[in-house]
Amino acid sequence: MGFREHLQAICKSCEGALACSLMGVDGIEVDSHVEGSGEVDVKALLVEYSGLFRNAREAAETHGAGGIAELFVETEKVLTVARLISPEYYMVVALAPGGNLGKARYLLRVTAPRLRSEL
Amino acid sequence: MGFREHLQAICKSCEGALACSLMGVDGIEVDSHVEGSGEVDVKALLVEYSGLFRNAREAAETHGAGGIAELFVETEKVLTVARLISPEYYMVVALAPGGNLGKARYLLRVTAPRLRSEL
Repeated sequence: MGFREHLQAICKSCEGALACSLMGVDGIEVDSHVEGSGEVDVKALLVEYSGLFRNAREAAETHGAGGIAELFVETEKVLTVARLISPEYYMVVALAPGGNLGKARYLLRVTAPRLRSEL
Repeated sequence: MGFREHLQAICKSCEGALACSLMGVDGIEVDSHVEGSGEVDVKALLVEYSGLFRNAREAAETHGAGGIAELFVETEKVLTVARLISPEYYMVVALAPGGNLGKARYLLRVTAPRLRSEL
């Protein structure tokens, strides 16, 4: 199974999923699966959010809070949950409001080791 | 009930809570309640994390994703969940690993309108 198939499988299994991406912490996308097109440019939003990962990591390191594992941002139109899978890469799922956040977190958790082994 | 009492009540009701703060989006703390002292300087970490709120807001506005409602950061040693209660202020709870994240989110949700009315 390639990266794209893993990302697509997450979207298919999670109610309300808009997109799933494998991203570098530097903001460069490795691969993405987008479910249809909505009002928000989700791919562009996810690239912009990568800065949050870098900022959170710096803040946590400065204060001895350890490495970042997960990040979640809820706005009026998009829920986003990201999980670090290696020091340089993370997976992220964007959901419509009311999407199944718990399922997205679970799927990221179980898929992370599979993608990690393929990086 | 003053701000401090609300923040303290959240900590007392949530397993694993380390601290609860009312913060300005500009990073200036309004009031805090800290439960004991741990390995991590949680108050300093929360101030540092305020930058994430500002960055997430900018990213969401740029891409038409609407206002930020909630932000969550999990590191190895601290889980942090923040909820915007007005355009300028948010509440944030820091938890030890294994702390009750669902309860923290629920308590922020129900306490937010009470604090908002007192701002």
